[in-house]
Amino acid sequence: MYGLPRRVQDLIDELSRLPGIGPKSAERLAFYLLRSDPARREKLGTSISLLREGIVACERCCNLAEATPCELCSDPSRDQETLLVVEEPLDLVAIEKSGYRGLYHVLGGAISPVEGIGPDQLFMNELFRRLEREAIAELILATNPNLEGEATAMYIARELAGCEFRISRLAHGLPMGADLEYADQVTLSRALEGRRSFSAS
Amino acid sequence: MYGLPRRVQDLIDELSRLPGIGPKSAERLAFYLLRSDPARREKLGTSISLLREGIVACERCCNLAEATPCELCSDPSRDQETLLVVEEPLDLVAIEKSGYRGLYHVLGGAISPVEGIGPDQLFMNELFRRLEREAIAELILATNPNLEGEATAMYIARELAGCEFRISRLAHGLPMGADLEYADQVTLSRALEGRRSFSAS
Repeated sequence: MYGLPRRVQDLIDELSRLPGIGPKSAERLAFYLLRSDPARREKLGTSISLLREGIVACERCCNLAEATPCELCSDPSRDQETLLVVEEPLDLVAIEKSGYRGLYHVLGGAISPVEGIGPDQLFMNELFRRLEREAIAELILATNPNLEGEATAMYIARELAGCEFRISRLAHGLPMGADLEYADQVTLSRALEGRRSFSAS
Repeated sequence: MYGLPRRVQDLIDELSRLPGIGPKSAERLAFYLLRSDPARREKLGTSISLLREGIVACERCCNLAEATPCELCSDPSRDQETLLVVEEPLDLVAIEKSGYRGLYHVLGGAISPVEGIGPDQLFMNELFRRLEREAIAELILATNPNLEGEATAMYIARELAGCEFRISRLAHGLPMGADLEYADQVTLSRALEGRRSFSAS
């Protein structure tokens, strides 16, 4: 494009290749960065360039970490008998915010035949080997409540049929603050199935 | 936040400070970058860090440029008698795409008493000095059709009252592809005022 310095144009092109950022947002971001403090630009730039430096997969939970075993795995104050399985590191962060204080295992995705992702492309064997070694009382399957997540949970439960520990799945139901009127059929029927006794205490 | 490596968390924090990027988009972007090609990360990072290196304001049109006078100002094939005034470099890019082939002047913003921006904070004197030196036949005021842009156009027109050259303003009216039913009153009345004779040729 004629009219902008090459460097600015290059940045706009790079930014607009990121997911969720269109050409207009990329332009706005580039001009915002042009006007911002050089130290901030430097910090953001370096953060991106060096993003993967020193980041490893934890050998125990397979999460992204700075050391292996990671901070969460090497924290003895956490409940060592409960293991919660998630698809991605961000799912772990979300669960961690909810107040869960047990162990984790990050699969690195979900089984998806359409995208060619089978158990071998995930940290699935790492999970099974771990379950042989560690004395777990409960395995919580916290994969996403969608087709791929359900299939993954189903696969794990089947592979572990007859195991000593309890296997559970996160409850399905109405999200807090939701409107019954707009809830979808499947969610409502799951919420009904999973109804719990209730009393004013 | 516990559960993510410091470096990843830092990047998420930095990204979520950018305009239009919330914490969730920042997380998604950071994980996208984690998974992407190291060369691409390096390129984007360097583009941001070195964004302003070698970028100057053109002494003639005040646009961002790699050299002064800039490519546009030093192109003798452009109409040297028409000067178009815009607020920002991106406005110039938009006009350039429309096929305009005259000269430009970038003000660097618009007059806005609310934000404390007066003519002195803009490249306004540069414009007036330029108009004394250069033999212009028409000055097109292409500031934005909003309060600040109109005020800026008005200010320039007043300062130049009695000048030899023609002063014009971009037409207001219905945008192409618009729906009359949904057009606002002001736009419609401007479109009526600016109506042009029409014949099937």
